[in-house]
Amino acid sequence: MFILGGTASNGIDIHIARSLGADLGKVETTKFPDGEIKVRVPEINDNRIAIVQSTYYPQEKNLFELLLAAYALKEKNAQVTAVIPYLAYARQNRSFYPGEATSVNLVLDMLRCAGVSSLVTVNPHRSGPLMYFGGKIGITNAEITLAGWVKEHLSSPLVLAPDKGSLDMAKGASSVMKCDYTYIEKHRDTYGTVSIEKAHGGDFRGKDVVIFDDIISTGSTIEQATRYAYSEGAATVSAAGIHLVMAGGAVEKLKNAGVQRIFGTNTIPCEKAEIVDVSEDIAESIRKLSREIGS
Amino acid sequence: MFILGGTASNGIDIHIARSLGADLGKVETTKFPDGEIKVRVPEINDNRIAIVQSTYYPQEKNLFELLLAAYALKEKNAQVTAVIPYLAYARQNRSFYPGEATSVNLVLDMLRCAGVSSLVTVNPHRSGPLMYFGGKIGITNAEITLAGWVKEHLSSPLVLAPDKGSLDMAKGASSVMKCDYTYIEKHRDTYGTVSIEKAHGGDFRGKDVVIFDDIISTGSTIEQATRYAYSEGAATVSAAGIHLVMAGGAVEKLKNAGVQRIFGTNTIPCEKAEIVDVSEDIAESIRKLSREIGS
Repeated sequence: MFILGGTASNGIDIHIARSLGADLGKVETTKFPDGEIKVRVPEINDNRIAIVQSTYYPQEKNLFELLLAAYALKEKNAQVTAVIPYLAYARQNRSFYPGEATSVNLVLDMLRCAGVSSLVTVNPHRSGPLMYFGGKIGITNAEITLAGWVKEHLSSPLVLAPDKGSLDMAKGASSVMKCDYTYIEKHRDTYGTVSIEKAHGGDFRGKDVVIFDDIISTGSTIEQATRYAYSEGAATVSAAGIHLVMAGGAVEKLKNAGVQRIFGTNTIPCEKAEIVDVSEDIAESIRKLSREIGS
Repeated sequence: MFILGGTASNGIDIHIARSLGADLGKVETTKFPDGEIKVRVPEINDNRIAIVQSTYYPQEKNLFELLLAAYALKEKNAQVTAVIPYLAYARQNRSFYPGEATSVNLVLDMLRCAGVSSLVTVNPHRSGPLMYFGGKIGITNAEITLAGWVKEHLSSPLVLAPDKGSLDMAKGASSVMKCDYTYIEKHRDTYGTVSIEKAHGGDFRGKDVVIFDDIISTGSTIEQATRYAYSEGAATVSAAGIHLVMAGGAVEKLKNAGVQRIFGTNTIPCEKAEIVDVSEDIAESIRKLSREIGS
C-alpha cells in the first residue's frame, strides 16, 4: 500500500506510512490567485493507495482536495482508500425538517463518485449513518489512546460524560484510567433551554474531573458541565475530546469556565490543547481493512 | 418550472423567475459555528426545478451549497437544472502534466451525482469540455448584451482582443458596436516571459479602446494590453469581461495601468465595475433547454 498525504493530513500520513512500512508521497496542491486549487498526484507504482486528508475547516476546500486527488487516481484504476481522521458533515445524518439535505450522504456519494472504494475515519459522531457509503469502512476508536494520555496527567481523576450520548465513551475511558465515571442528565424546557438536572452518582469532591466528549465544537456543552462539576466540589476540571473542532472562541469559553487543561487528538490541529497522536490506531484500522479487502 | 435561488445567485434568480413567469423560492442555508452549512429547500409543487447558484469565491462552498440543494430535491424525483452563471473550475479542463486531476470533470460528475440532469452556464472559457457532463447543456453567450452595454458608454470605440483566444468574442462585440476590432499577437520567449509583438491592424490613435475578454482574473493580460494600447495612441482604454473574477488586487492593477472603466456582467458581483444584467440571456437558454427536454 502507498500512503498519499493531503495538505490537511496534519502529519498523520507520515506516522501511518512509518507504522505500515509503506511508501509515502504528497498530494501537490497549487492555489490559483482566484482561489481555485489544482491537484496533482505523484507517479505511484502500487495499485492500493490510501489518501490521508482530514476535513476540518475550511471543510469544503479540504474535501474537494481529497476528491480531486482520488479523481486523479481513478483513471489509473487504483484501489483508493480515503483516510479521513475528522470527517466533516458526519453529524448531519438525517433530515430534522422536510427539505433538508442529508449532508453526510452527499459527502459519501461524492467520495464514491470520485473513485474512493473504502473509507477509514476516527470516532464519527455515529457510525450507523456511514453505512450508506456502500464500500468497506474502517472505524477507528481513539478513546482508549486519548484516555491513556489523560491518565498520565491527572492524579485523582473522575470521568464525566456531559450527556447520556457520551456515556459509552466515558465508560471506556474510565476503565482505561481505572477510575469512576458518571454522566449528567439534561433537561430541556418548553423554550428549548437546556439545564443540568443532576449527575448520576460519582463524588466530585476533591477530584480531577475530566469531561469526555467525541467532538468539542463551540464548547457550550463542556462549559455547562464544567460549572456543574465545580459546583459539586471538583478540585480541577479538564476537557478531553477526540476531535477538537473549537469553533469561534471555544478555547476562551472553556478557560473562562475554569477548564484547566484541554486534551485531544491530532485528527484536527489545535495549538491550545495537549495532543496525543492517534496514527497507530488509524494504521491498525487500515491493516484490518486491508485484510478484509484481501480476503 | 420553479426557480430556486441559492445564496450566490446575485439576484439573477429573481430576474429569471420574472422573465419566465415562474414561481421563485430560496434555498435556506444555515451556517454552523464550525463553518459547516446546512441546506433546506422549500416545498415545491413543480417537478421541474432550476437552481440558480453561481460558483464564484469561495468556490467550493458555493458549489457544495448547490450540490446540497440538488441532493435535497433528488429524493423527490425532481428534474433539476443547475443554472450556474459563473462555473468555477471550467478552465481546468485537461491535464497538463501526468497525475493532474481534470477538475471540471469532477465538478460535472458531482453535479450528476447530486441529481442534476441539465446545466445552464454563461460563456465557459471553452464549451467543448462541458460535454463530458452527459446531460443537456445550455450555453448562454452574453457577449452581445455586454457589447450593447459598452456601446452606450463609448463614443469612438475600437474593440481589442488581448490575445488570439478572445478574437471571436471581439469580432462579435465589434459587430454589435459597429466599430473595428483587432487583436494582439503575443510572443513567449524561452524563459516563458510573454511580450506583445504587435496588433493585427486597427488604428488606435484617438480611439476609446475597449479590451474584451471572457474572464478577467488577475488582470495581468488586460494590464499588458492597456499599456500597449496607450503606446499606440489610444485616447482612453476600458476593459470588458463577461466574468469579473478580479482576483487579489486586479481592480487596482487595471486602474494603475490606466484602465478608465471596467464593464462586466452580474455572473459575479463586482462593486468596482459597471455591470449589465444578463438574466434575460440566461432565461432564454433555459427556455430553449426546456423545449429540448420537452420534445
